[in-house]
Parts: sequence; structure tokens; C-alpha cells
Amino acid sequence: MTIVYAAIVCGLIAVAYGIITSMQVLRAPAGNEKMQDIASAIQEGAKAYLGRQYTTIAIVGVIVAAIVFFTLGGLSTVSFLIGAILSGIAGYIGMNISVRANVRTAEAARTSLQGGLTLAFRSGAITGMLVAGLGLLAISGIFWYLTGPSNLQPGDHKVVEALTALAFGASLISIFARLGGGIFTKAADVGADLVGKVEAGIPEDDPRNPATIADNVGDNVGDCAGMAADLFETYVVTIGLTMVSIALLLPNVYNLFQLMTLPLIVGGVCIITSIIGTYLVRLGSKQSIMGAMYKGFWTTVILSIPAIFFATQHVLGDMAAPIQAGAISFTGAKLFWCMMIGLAVTGLLVWITEYYTGTNYRPVKSIAKASTTGHGTNVIQGLAISLESTALPTLVIVVAVVATFQLAGIIGVAFAATSLLALAGMVVALDAYGPVTDNAGGIAEMAGLPDDVRHRTDALDAVGNTTKAVTKGYAIGSAALAALVLFGAYTTDLGRYQTELGIGTIDFTLSNPYIIVGLLLGALLPYLFGAFGMTAVGRAAGSVVEDVRAQFAADKGIMEGTSRPNYARTVDIVTRAAIKEMIIPSLLPVLSPVAVFFIIQAVAGREQGFAALGAMLLGVIVSGLFVAISMTSGGGAWDNAKKYIEDGNYGGKGSEAHKAAVTGDTVGDPYKDTAGPAVNPMIKITNIVALLLLAALAAHGAG
Amino acid sequence: MTIVYAAIVCGLIAVAYGIITSMQVLRAPAGNEKMQDIASAIQEGAKAYLGRQYTTIAIVGVIVAAIVFFTLGGLSTVSFLIGAILSGIAGYIGMNISVRANVRTAEAARTSLQGGLTLAFRSGAITGMLVAGLGLLAISGIFWYLTGPSNLQPGDHKVVEALTALAFGASLISIFARLGGGIFTKAADVGADLVGKVEAGIPEDDPRNPATIADNVGDNVGDCAGMAADLFETYVVTIGLTMVSIALLLPNVYNLFQLMTLPLIVGGVCIITSIIGTYLVRLGSKQSIMGAMYKGFWTTVILSIPAIFFATQHVLGDMAAPIQAGAISFTGAKLFWCMMIGLAVTGLLVWITEYYTGTNYRPVKSIAKASTTGHGTNVIQGLAISLESTALPTLVIVVAVVATFQLAGIIGVAFAATSLLALAGMVVALDAYGPVTDNAGGIAEMAGLPDDVRHRTDALDAVGNTTKAVTKGYAIGSAALAALVLFGAYTTDLGRYQTELGIGTIDFTLSNPYIIVGLLLGALLPYLFGAFGMTAVGRAAGSVVEDVRAQFAADKGIMEGTSRPNYARTVDIVTRAAIKEMIIPSLLPVLSPVAVFFIIQAVAGREQGFAALGAMLLGVIVSGLFVAISMTSGGGAWDNAKKYIEDGNYGGKGSEAHKAAVTGDTVGDPYKDTAGPAVNPMIKITNIVALLLLAALAAHGAG
Repeated sequence: MTIVYAAIVCGLIAVAYGIITSMQVLRAPAGNEKMQDIASAIQEGAKAYLGRQYTTIAIVGVIVAAIVFFTLGGLSTVSFLIGAILSGIAGYIGMNISVRANVRTAEAARTSLQGGLTLAFRSGAITGMLVAGLGLLAISGIFWYLTGPSNLQPGDHKVVEALTALAFGASLISIFARLGGGIFTKAADVGADLVGKVEAGIPEDDPRNPATIADNVGDNVGDCAGMAADLFETYVVTIGLTMVSIALLLPNVYNLFQLMTLPLIVGGVCIITSIIGTYLVRLGSKQSIMGAMYKGFWTTVILSIPAIFFATQHVLGDMAAPIQAGAISFTGAKLFWCMMIGLAVTGLLVWITEYYTGTNYRPVKSIAKASTTGHGTNVIQGLAISLESTALPTLVIVVAVVATFQLAGIIGVAFAATSLLALAGMVVALDAYGPVTDNAGGIAEMAGLPDDVRHRTDALDAVGNTTKAVTKGYAIGSAALAALVLFGAYTTDLGRYQTELGIGTIDFTLSNPYIIVGLLLGALLPYLFGAFGMTAVGRAAGSVVEDVRAQFAADKGIMEGTSRPNYARTVDIVTRAAIKEMIIPSLLPVLSPVAVFFIIQAVAGREQGFAALGAMLLGVIVSGLFVAISMTSGGGAWDNAKKYIEDGNYGGKGSEAHKAAVTGDTVGDPYKDTAGPAVNPMIKITNIVALLLLAALAAHGAG
Repeated sequence: MTIVYAAIVCGLIAVAYGIITSMQVLRAPAGNEKMQDIASAIQEGAKAYLGRQYTTIAIVGVIVAAIVFFTLGGLSTVSFLIGAILSGIAGYIGMNISVRANVRTAEAARTSLQGGLTLAFRSGAITGMLVAGLGLLAISGIFWYLTGPSNLQPGDHKVVEALTALAFGASLISIFARLGGGIFTKAADVGADLVGKVEAGIPEDDPRNPATIADNVGDNVGDCAGMAADLFETYVVTIGLTMVSIALLLPNVYNLFQLMTLPLIVGGVCIITSIIGTYLVRLGSKQSIMGAMYKGFWTTVILSIPAIFFATQHVLGDMAAPIQAGAISFTGAKLFWCMMIGLAVTGLLVWITEYYTGTNYRPVKSIAKASTTGHGTNVIQGLAISLESTALPTLVIVVAVVATFQLAGIIGVAFAATSLLALAGMVVALDAYGPVTDNAGGIAEMAGLPDDVRHRTDALDAVGNTTKAVTKGYAIGSAALAALVLFGAYTTDLGRYQTELGIGTIDFTLSNPYIIVGLLLGALLPYLFGAFGMTAVGRAAGSVVEDVRAQFAADKGIMEGTSRPNYARTVDIVTRAAIKEMIIPSLLPVLSPVAVFFIIQAVAGREQGFAALGAMLLGVIVSGLFVAISMTSGGGAWDNAKKYIEDGNYGGKGSEAHKAAVTGDTVGDPYKDTAGPAVNPMIKITNIVALLLLAALAAHGAG
């Protein structure tokens, strides 16, 4: 039990880091009155949106909690609520820091680049540590309560169900937050760009554009709060479900308790290495911002290697002692190597994403070059890159699956996913830095700060584009590994509940046509979901365009700079649109598994229902992995191709090539920030709903 | 054997129809000298391109034939060559008629809409009947030779191998022709549009645009020759592999020979109903061109119902007699219903495609509306529609799979695919009509024919956009069904060759990680292939733009209409680019299955190699279905959104909305005509290579 306590302590340290660093950030000077005015408009908008979003989610959450209560009982309901509430808290606090750090970063950038970098990064690190810390506290807290005071066996089905319900709570919030925030941020961004940059010919973040505050609000509710909820979900699902898989696959192993605590302590020690890493994000002599980020990131990775080794050795004792259960046999050393593979996957995914979205490499340059022949060729090349960018991550994941499976079976895959996710604190820090600097640039522009300040904030912001893409690649990569583990849990659960469910062995072979049917229906989900997301952004952005055009037409003074546009009206329009548009698509992955099971059960019997449902879980990842990677990497590449041209290539700002690149960037926006990243929680929620459906059916007998 | 003879006779009737109708078409007046000049430039360009394309393919073909000879022997090599050569012939003749019918259609349109329609449609019907007729002749000819003069049993493995090799030959040519032609046509089209419509502000097909002849050549080599090769492949693979599946799955059934001839005679009678249908394509009182097309199409569908019924009854005798082999049991009546499901799928896919690409419905209108807010929102909405358009076809296919499987197992699925493909003659006729009218419009414009002629050719052309999209949806839908049948053949073959291959039972369950690995690698193929196709078009179109810009700059007289541009230079540039760009992507699906098998075999043993390879075959269809449908429907919708605006909506031609719609159309071009349709042969070739690899490994022992 000391291991669990140690994990809880690590979680508390992360939360303490968050509190202390928050105080540091808030103590920094908040700029002149004009800057504070703008910042408070952003704060109000963000708060208003998040308030409405959480109210809406709460209604859905209460309904789902009631369903969970009546089908799975009180313990699962409490776990579900803990997951849901903590996910909301992580996003809410992160966003609150972010909307205060933005103006302080702009102020700090007045004096030095390092000052701005430190403030923005620290603010991101607060979100990062809260995500990892609260996630770890939730899992280890529940595990401690059930195996300690409640005196349950670690492999008891109540432990399994509680951890699954915790993951479900986190996932449910996360899909709404990711999608709602994603729709908000991109509707505002696309709308502002179309009507500002393209039609009116005014720069980004120009205070005359009525949509500019909405755009800055969007960065916070989408890229900060939405992303934090997403990564919280990914963390809880991966680490929690690794423990569940151990319980399900190795029920009779002699050191079950130790094995189940290993993911907890790995998460714990990596929080410590992540905190150390955050202090190393410092500019070197070359003043490279990306270099500073990498310094922190690689420090964390390298420190995590011995940390994971000693943690594993401490938990398992003899690293060479065989751990055997049925057909599965491995050693502590092999588990350690699986976790090293997880770290290697993290590094490779970061590197591949940077290649596909960084301005120094072929993909982005090819899109920039294609812009010289027009809007059409820019988009064609961008789509080509987005399709291509799926190849290397897929190969990395395939190699990791083969290698970890050879080392320790499906448990090996699970531990690779765990070590991948253990670095979440650091990765989220890199990502949450993005909206802060994006906002800082906006505030600098709107407040009319000198050009050199805007140069510094622009430099900080450009790096944010790449780090944001990196996190998405990382999240979806982990989803692929996690989905395999979840499928393993599903099949094991089916075996365990055979009697209760009144079924025989399920035919999961590919020649069963219901498997094909399940694979096809699963593969359809990311497409349909992506279609909803893209349509929502297009529709909401269209209403922004119309509102801004109306404001310009009604008051000529806005464009002349003599009247102040009605920022709040635009924020309100986007808010209502985003809330309305997020509901149906978010329910799609929740309801589809249930519908597919019952329809196929009605047509071909219960066993084929479970077969089709299982195949659906894999179909959704087989297609979702590609949809998500192509959208997030492609979108990042489009964005940076525009930046590359703005840096003075192919005619620079205002050239025809630039206009084409702006179109590409606009197309990439909902790709990379709405539809693409929301696929990650979507995949997990489909899987978790299937697990819970199974538990609910088992609890209510052979139907 | 009389059934086989009857099928051969039907095939000959189709060829005779082609010859007689060709003579009719060629007898029509070919217009004035200027029109004939333009037409002969198109003819020369098309001939030059196709000559070079077939030379290049022939080199690859000879190498592959040598490999087939040394691994599988002489019979397979001959079959392979028959498939390859007939595929080439179908495309070559079709294109030769098409480049002569174009100018005659323009001439006929001078007097009446019906005249133009009849000529264009008859010319398309020639290609259609040649595709179906030559396909049927090849299959029934080989089957007759082997079971007649060579005295082999219908289920002999030599028959199976010969039919598989025939399909391989057709597929190999088809992927090159589809992709090479697709790159040519879209590079020319995109390049011409970008530099003509967008930059120089001159209309489509303006004779001052140096790329305009290349654009018209492209319609013929891509939409006619490439499409014909593709559908020939689809026809041969589907009908041939249905016979193979019967031989593999029901080796000991009492009426094996009858069952194997049933697909042949179904193909035969549907050629007759298709020919009847072609004579009913006539304008009614409403002068609706699409209505005329539908009259012919639905006549064919309705006549095919009794035709298939009587053919089945004639071949099998008692429709209620149970046909049993192992676990599979069905009756003739059930097979008939499976084929009716195939016809229903055809009708539904046509209807869904029309919904997603027709100007009367929500999807196209939504893209047109989104164009009013800019290039970016047009592309976003187009991508949303392209993602959404996958849903209904997937559901139709899923329902068809479930229903036919419940009726008659995997054989039922195969017969549904057969009846779907039996209508290929009619469907190809509808499609091959497209490039003729597209060219006719171009010739009318370039030859300066009066406006009312151009109006008629435009009206004919608009329908061609929808019929072209319909064929692609049809082809990929059939590919989904065919892929299931092919996978069935693969697993059965594995069982049959167990001893020769030195393997036990293969673990095809989803919990085997090598199955996941195979699914992921298979799913990657359409993405990578799509990336190659899109990049190729972007790159080749870029060189067209540069060439045209150079021509405009070098001779001011071109834009003033006083000098003639160097059309041949642009054609040559596109030719070289297309040939160069088609090779690597076409080899991807040929080499990948072999590479995956040998790599996984090396890592995890032969059995896992076969497991991963099998999963790859399903992965490629699970992801390819979505990639192909989204690309072809999305592209068609973009194209018609532009047409919808050109019809006077949202400001009409020249408006900002129109410019945005032109961008969308440009993006949709390589989607719908290069990358998307080539996914169909790609899926099949992956499957066939796997079957042949298996046969080759079995022939060379337990390695």
C-alpha cells in the first residue's frame, strides 16, 4: 500500500506545483489599462462560454449518471462523477490561469523574450501538472479506497467497474469539451479571418474586427480547456485501463496488487521528472524557443528512464523473476523494456509531427510552394500532405505493438501506453503554452504595443503551432495503443461474464460477416463525426461572417477606428452556435455502440451482437487513427505554410501566394482543432461504453 | 456446357453491338474544318498519350508475366496476358470512338438536343458493351477451354488459378490506366483552370488557353480509357472470383458445374437487357436529359429481374432444391433473392450518389451557399460533405452483407456482387457518355459555334458529371462486396494448402495483435496511395501553369487571339508527368502484400505472416471504402456546386462566390478523378496479389 501512498503524494506534489506556480504567474505585472481592458473582455467571454458549456454538459452528465446508477449501482456512479468533475476542474482552472497569463506574457515580452517565454510556459505547466496530478489522484484515490478501507481484492469486479466508470466520466466530459471548445475556437477564428484578413484586408487581431475578442476567447476555451479535458481523459483511461487489464488478464498472478500499482507509481515518478523538466525550459545562446522547449522535454524523457527503472524494480523486486498467468509470461525487465518502447514512441511521434508541421521541412515548404499557383493547388497539396502524414506514425505504432506484444503480450502494450501517457504533464505544458502566446500576440496588437513586442509574441506563437500539433499526434497515438488494451479488456470481460450473459464463445474471426459489419460501422464513426464537426464550424463561422459584415455596414466608424465594435455580440453568437452544435455529434459515439449491439442482436442473436460490437471497437480505431492524424498534421502544416510565406517567402504577406495560403490555413483550422482532435476521446468513449454495456447486461442477467 | 456457349454468344452480341454502333457513330457528319482540326489535335494527343502509357505498362506487364510464369506456370501466364491485353483493348477502342464521337456530337447538337444525346450516349454504350462483352468472353472462354477441351474438373485448382491470374492481369493494367489517365486528366484540367479561368479570366475551353487541348485529351484518356480499364477489371474480378469462390467453398456440391456457370449466364442475360436499355435513352416531353438516362437504366434493371430469374431457374432446375456443402446450405430461390439484393444495392447507390452530387439537393446547395463566405468555407463545407457522403453507402452495403449472408452465406454475398456487376455495360455507357459531351462542349467553344449549340452541349455535359460520380460509387460499392468474397477465397485457400504451406490453422481472431497490425497496415494503403495521387496532380498541374504562363509571356498575340498557342507542348508536358508519376503508386498495392507477409513471417513466423496478410486485405477495404466514397462524392459535389452557381445562383459567373466555387472544383478534381477512383482497382489488386502469393508459396513447398 506504500506504493499507492507514494503515487498519491506525487499527485499532491503536482497540484502543489500548480498552486505555487499560479501564484507566481499572477504576481507578474498585468500591463497598462488598455491591455487589462482587452484581457478582461477575453476573460469574461471565456468564463461565460465555459459556464454555459459546463451547464449543458452537466445536464447530460446527470442523465448519464442516473443511467449508470440504475444499471451499475452507486459505486460506479460516484466514480463516474469523480471522473467527470475532475475533468471539468482541470480544464476550468487551466483556462482561468491562461486568460490571466496572456496579458502578463504580453507585458513580460515588452522587456525580453525569455520573460515572455517563462511566463507563458509556466502557465502551460500549471495546466499540465493539474491534468496529470488530478488524474493520478483520482485513480490512486479510488484504488486506495477500494483495496484499503473497503477491503476488496485488487482484481475484484467492483474495482474494475469503478475504474472503468471513472474513465467514462472523464471521457464523456472530454468529448463535449473538446468538440464544443473546438467548434467555438475555429468558428471564431475562421469567421474572423474570412471577414477580416480576406474581405476587409485588415491584419489578424486588429481591434476593428468585431470577431477578434471571440477569436482570442476561442484559443482559451478550445486549445486550453478543451485540450486539458481531452488529455485528462487520455491519462485516466490509459493508466486506469492498464490496471483494469492487469486485473482481467492476470486474475491469479501472485503479485497482482504490485502489478496493478506499477502504472500508478510510473505515473507518479514521471510527474516529478516533468516538474524538473519545466525548470529547464530556458533560451540558450541561439535564442531558439523550440530549442528551449526541447531542453525541458528531453530532460524529462531522459530522467524518466532511470526513474521508471527504479520504480519498477522497487515494486516488483527481482526484475528477472517470471510473472506467469495462463499463456502470458513475462518478467519485470521485459515490462521495463515495454515502457522504454512507450518513451521511444513518444519521442518518435514528436519528431514525426515536427517534420510534418515544422517550417523547416519538405511538407510545409511544398504547401507554401503550391500556394504560388493558387488557392486550389494549395489545398490539393495540403490534402496530399495530410494523407501522407499518417504513414510514419502508423508504422511506429505497428512496430511498437509487435515489439511490446512479443515482450509481454497485451500487458506489454498496456505498459507502453502507460509510459507514453506518464509524460502527459510535460506534453500538456508544451501545448497549453500555445493559447497563452496566441492571446499575448492578440493583446499586443490590439493594445498597439510597439512592433518589437509583437515580434517577440509572434516568435513565441509560431512555436505554439508545432507544440499544439505534437500533443494531438501524441494523444491519438496513445489512443491507438489504449484501444488495443480496451479491446483486450472487452474480450476478457465477455469470457468472464459468459454465464451471466447466456452466451457461448464469441466468433471474433475475420471470416464472420458480422465482424466485417462491425469493422465497417466502426470505421464510419470518425467520418460521420468529422462531417458533423466540419459542418458545425462552417455554419458557425458563416454566422460570424454575417454578423461582422452587418456591424461594418451599420457603423462605418468601426473600420475608421472611431467606434468600438460590439465584441460581446459576436462572442455570444459563437457561444450559442458552439453549444448547440456540440450535442448531437458528442452523443454519436455514446449511442452507436448500444444501437449496433441491439440491432445486430435482434437480427442475428446475442453472440453476433457482441461480435459486431467488438469489431466496431477496432473499426473505430483503424479508421479513426488515420482520420485524426491526417486532420491534425495536415491542419498544422497548412497553418505553418502560411507562416512560412509570411516570413517573406514566395512574396510574403499580401501576395497572391499568401492569399492562397490563408485559404489553406482556414481549411486546416477545423481539421486540426475541431474534428481531428475530438476523434481521440471519441475512440475511447466508444470502447468504454461497450465495456459498461457489457457490465450492465451481465448485471441484469441473460436477457 | 450449353450455358457456357450461351454466355459466349452474349459476349459476342455485345462485341457485335459495339462494332455496329461504331459504324453508325462514325457515319455521322464530323463538322466543319475548324472543328475537325480541333478534334484531330485531341485525337493525336490522346493517341500519343495512350501509346506511351501502354508501352510503359507493357514493360511492367512483361516483368510481372515473367514472375507469374516462373512461380505459377504457363497457364496462369496466358490467363494473365489475356486479362491484361483485353483490358487494354477495351480502353483503347473506347477511347478511339470517344475522340471521334466528340466532334460528331458537337455537330449533331447544332440541330437538336436529341441528336447530340443519341450520338454521345451511343458512343458511351460502345465502350460499355465492349467492357462487359470482352470481360464475359474472357472468363467464359477460359472456363470453356479448361473444362471442355482440357477436360479439367470445374473445381480443379488449375481453373481457380487461371481465373485468378486473368483477374490479376486485368487489375494490373487497370490500376496503371486509372491512375495514369487520372493524373493526366486532372493535371491538365486543374492547370488549365488555374491559369485560364482564375488568372487570365478567360472561360473554360477558350482556344487562347494553351492547356485546353490537353484538358480535352485528358477527358478521353482518364474518364474514358482509364474508366473502361477499371470497370473491365471490376467485372472480371467480380464474376471470375464468384466462380472461384464457388469452387473453393463448395468443392463437393453435386451441381458444381451448373453453379459455376450461373454467374456467366447472369452476366450474359444482363448484356442483352443492357443493350435493350440503350435504345430507350430518349428525351421525353420534359426534355430532361437525366430522365432519358434513367429511362434506359431503369428499363435495364427491371428487365434484368425476370431475365435473372429465368436464367437461374434454367441453370439450377428446381429453385427450392437445397444445395448443401458442409455448413453452407441454400436454394436457387435464395440465390435469386441475393441477386435481387445486388440490383437493389445498384439502385440505392445510384440514388445516394445523385443525392450527394446533384444540384437539386441539400449537399451541393450547402457547398454553393458556403462559397458566398469565401474560398475557405467552400472547401470546409465540401470536405464535410465528402466525409458525410460515406454514411449511407456504408449502411446499404452493411445491410446487403447481412441479408445476403443470412440467405446463402458468403456465396450469397458473391452473387449479390455478380448481379451488381452484371449491369456494368449499362453503367459504363452512362459514364463513358461524359467525356464525349465534355469534349463536344470544348470543341463547340473553340470552334466558335453559336451560343445555342454551346447551351445544348453544356446541358449534356452537366448530366455527365453526375453519371460519372455514379459509376465511381458503383465501382467502389462492388469492390466492398468483392473484397469480402476475395477474403473468403483467401482463407479457404489457406485451409486447402495447409500441408503445402507447412502451417496449422491461422488465428484470424481480432485479439491476435498481428491481425491489428494487418488491419492498420491495410488501412494505411489507401491513404498513402491517395497522397501519391494528389501530390502527382498538384505537381503536374503546377508545371502546366508554368508552361502556360511562359507561353503567354513569350507571345502577347496568344491572349489577343492573333497567334495560335503551342497546344502540343502542353500535351507533351502532361504526358511525361503522368507517365512518370503513375509508376510508384501503382506498384504500392502490388508490392505491399508481399512485403508485409515476408516481414511478419521473419518476425513472428509464417502463420502470423498469413494472419497479418489476411487482415491487411480487410484493412484496405475498411479504410478504402471510405476514402474512395468520400473523394468521389465530395469531388462531384464540389463540381456541381460550381455549376449551380454558374446557373445564376449566389451571383452567378464571375462573382466572388463563383471564384470560391472554382477553388472547390479544383480541389475536387484530383479527389474524384485521380485518387478516389483508383482506390477501387487498388483494393482488388492487393487481394489478388495475396491469393497469387499463396498459390506461389504452395507451389514451392513449405519454404
